[in-house]
Amino acid sequence: MDREVSVRPLSQAVRESILDQRDFTQQLFDELEKGSRGRRGVTRDPFGRGENFAHDLFAKHASALGFEVSTDFVGNSYATWRGADRSLPRLIIGSHLDTVSEGGNFDGAAGVVAGLVSVTALCLMGMKPHRDIQIMAIRAEESAWFQVSYIGSRSALGALPKGALEAKRVDTGRTLSDHLAASGGSPAAIHRGERYIDPAAVTAFIEVHIEQAPSLVEAGLPVAICTAIPGNFRYSNVIIHGEQAHVGLPRRFRRDAVMAGVDFAYALDRLWEEYEVAGQPMACTLGRFYTDAAYHSLTNVPGLLHFSLDVRAYNAEQLEQIERQVWELIRKIEAKRSVRFEMGVRASAAIGHADPQIQQGLSASAEALNIPWMKLGSPASHDAAAFAESGIPIGMIFVRNRNGSHNPDEAMDISDFLDACSVLAFWLSIHSSAPAEALVVK
Amino acid sequence: MDREVSVRPLSQAVRESILDQRDFTQQLFDELEKGSRGRRGVTRDPFGRGENFAHDLFAKHASALGFEVSTDFVGNSYATWRGADRSLPRLIIGSHLDTVSEGGNFDGAAGVVAGLVSVTALCLMGMKPHRDIQIMAIRAEESAWFQVSYIGSRSALGALPKGALEAKRVDTGRTLSDHLAASGGSPAAIHRGERYIDPAAVTAFIEVHIEQAPSLVEAGLPVAICTAIPGNFRYSNVIIHGEQAHVGLPRRFRRDAVMAGVDFAYALDRLWEEYEVAGQPMACTLGRFYTDAAYHSLTNVPGLLHFSLDVRAYNAEQLEQIERQVWELIRKIEAKRSVRFEMGVRASAAIGHADPQIQQGLSASAEALNIPWMKLGSPASHDAAAFAESGIPIGMIFVRNRNGSHNPDEAMDISDFLDACSVLAFWLSIHSSAPAEALVVK
Repeated sequence: MDREVSVRPLSQAVRESILDQRDFTQQLFDELEKGSRGRRGVTRDPFGRGENFAHDLFAKHASALGFEVSTDFVGNSYATWRGADRSLPRLIIGSHLDTVSEGGNFDGAAGVVAGLVSVTALCLMGMKPHRDIQIMAIRAEESAWFQVSYIGSRSALGALPKGALEAKRVDTGRTLSDHLAASGGSPAAIHRGERYIDPAAVTAFIEVHIEQAPSLVEAGLPVAICTAIPGNFRYSNVIIHGEQAHVGLPRRFRRDAVMAGVDFAYALDRLWEEYEVAGQPMACTLGRFYTDAAYHSLTNVPGLLHFSLDVRAYNAEQLEQIERQVWELIRKIEAKRSVRFEMGVRASAAIGHADPQIQQGLSASAEALNIPWMKLGSPASHDAAAFAESGIPIGMIFVRNRNGSHNPDEAMDISDFLDACSVLAFWLSIHSSAPAEALVVK
Repeated sequence: MDREVSVRPLSQAVRESILDQRDFTQQLFDELEKGSRGRRGVTRDPFGRGENFAHDLFAKHASALGFEVSTDFVGNSYATWRGADRSLPRLIIGSHLDTVSEGGNFDGAAGVVAGLVSVTALCLMGMKPHRDIQIMAIRAEESAWFQVSYIGSRSALGALPKGALEAKRVDTGRTLSDHLAASGGSPAAIHRGERYIDPAAVTAFIEVHIEQAPSLVEAGLPVAICTAIPGNFRYSNVIIHGEQAHVGLPRRFRRDAVMAGVDFAYALDRLWEEYEVAGQPMACTLGRFYTDAAYHSLTNVPGLLHFSLDVRAYNAEQLEQIERQVWELIRKIEAKRSVRFEMGVRASAAIGHADPQIQQGLSASAEALNIPWMKLGSPASHDAAAFAESGIPIGMIFVRNRNGSHNPDEAMDISDFLDACSVLAFWLSIHSSAPAEALVVK
């Protein structure tokens, strides 16, 4: 019998190499979980014990795998796979290693593990990248701790807002500057606005992340290619001033702050419904909505209502239009209810559009691998948005996940995760390697 | 010139005698205010310094005026004007002497002063009442302190609910039983359900009170004759259970507790509007409406909402119908929003209808005196409701008052107050005296 010549396509080779990493992947997630276990969930507090442990673990494995390991002045960790031409803008794959308090093991860490696993799989295939590929483990993404977004990524990009160094960690009361110094970082460098990452020297930033909503569960698909990270506007501390009065006050005399807030929330919800029906996804959240415990009572018409407002969408014109509608609504309710809305500080974030070419490339990769996928607007914010804001092309892959995130019940199957790694690795093999033929494994 | 024979009608004589009491009235209010002045307003805390002072002042003046002064086991004070036939059921004129913390000088006290002033005016006219007339200064009406209504009046009537003695004063943390004993009352007598006032021995209870809404201000009238004290149903501690989730969660997956509460409040407000338009007055109050500070945040879909509900009306069928509608609404919202309403303890109070004959008598009195008046459903609850619930015919007169009540800015003009006293005194002169002719002043 003649010896058959087997020519496996590259996609199949990448897929097999990724699947070979199943045990390594599981081991990484287990070690992470074991080292940062809290009372009920996982706690990797930024610049604290949990996050520091995760960075040490990352460095240990990255070194063992033969990557060049480094850190920057905010404490982000990097594992660099040297490329053939080191003068080319590098490609960064990353996500954050911190978690919320008593959160889950996958929110953030999955993107760092995906980087290690994908690059290792290609490495073991004998691939040599054209340009440097860097796996970045980012610090302090979760805004729950310092009430500041993207601390690690924006610091590295020289884009942390003024004043953020003085933000206090809600549990310790110590400033970011203080925490940072204690874990070996340099507040001074951040204060000077130094850049560890020059956007001109980066070709793309790619982030794998668990989906924080159940769209993929609903669709029965393992992965999604991100189209955009929503932009938002926020009024964190709105106060409606009405007039506290006796519970028996007839309707026509009332200046009821709660009913004014109810009118607002109800009308906003109707607006949202209309946009959804029109195929323009968005989200409106009144996360805090409360009468003041110092004044409210069963037998008083409430004179004050406090609330927070977060409105997010994937289209800048839509966001602008909604904000105009919000203000019209407020003026109407102020007149109708004889109340006053004190809107407080406004904040906003730009939409982080995924680069069309990267979206196209990742989709083509999924197709080539026969991994079923869908397009998806990110429900949440991600470090990738900070890179996009600095002008770096970004791409994201979401992994199916049950039970949401920011809780110990996050549930991501390793098979789905390896699907995401496969999509990433095959795209890398095309995008950042020498000509594809050279990579076909012997 | 012949000496003219002047025959003044009784109404005019009563009116003049009341107006003669202007200085005494002002003095009484001033003494009350001076002795119970707080930081900003007036504080006559029940079974505490402020209320005790007011009762001592009442006893001092009542004794000086020659009335028989007594107290009961809960510390209510009585000044009795002895009638010709002491075996007849007596007539009680009263209101409460306590206030909310930093409240106004008139809420409650006006009714006690009205009793003293009206009876004194008739006394000075040489009137001798047919039956005993008692001025009652009631303890602890304001439910803000012990979260229990009508403590003084219901105790005297043997109708204080079981368990109320163990209620704690919100500021001191000490029980009603404790406070009561410390100010010389007998918790044991209340515990045994003793009655100091036998409803069969009372012909009527009359209460003068400032209006706690601005209906009289709006109408430009000094006094109103009360038609009824509203009944109510209350759910003091409702909890809506939804599911806390990430701020980016798409609309179709949300189980938003705040938006469920907003749906409820909005629909209830529409219902209320319909009743008002249909000429069926009522009031709906969501006095407390709040997300939990331990969980809520700008970046979470709220999973819990707490609120209190007070619905009041003057018609029992209407109240029943509204409560049915409230439950229908809840079922609909639970299905629509995938949330659960935990309604907690329900409480209710019966409507206190003013006795038609007394209403008629007081109205006729106002007409005879040429004092402009209107009918008015009471916006608030009053001790009179406790008497009505015990089967005693009640009547109330409201006095015009600006700026509501339960605040230091209550504003009642003495002229309006003397109008109310005139209406009361003339009605007394008809209702509780020997034949009117005998009273015409020489």
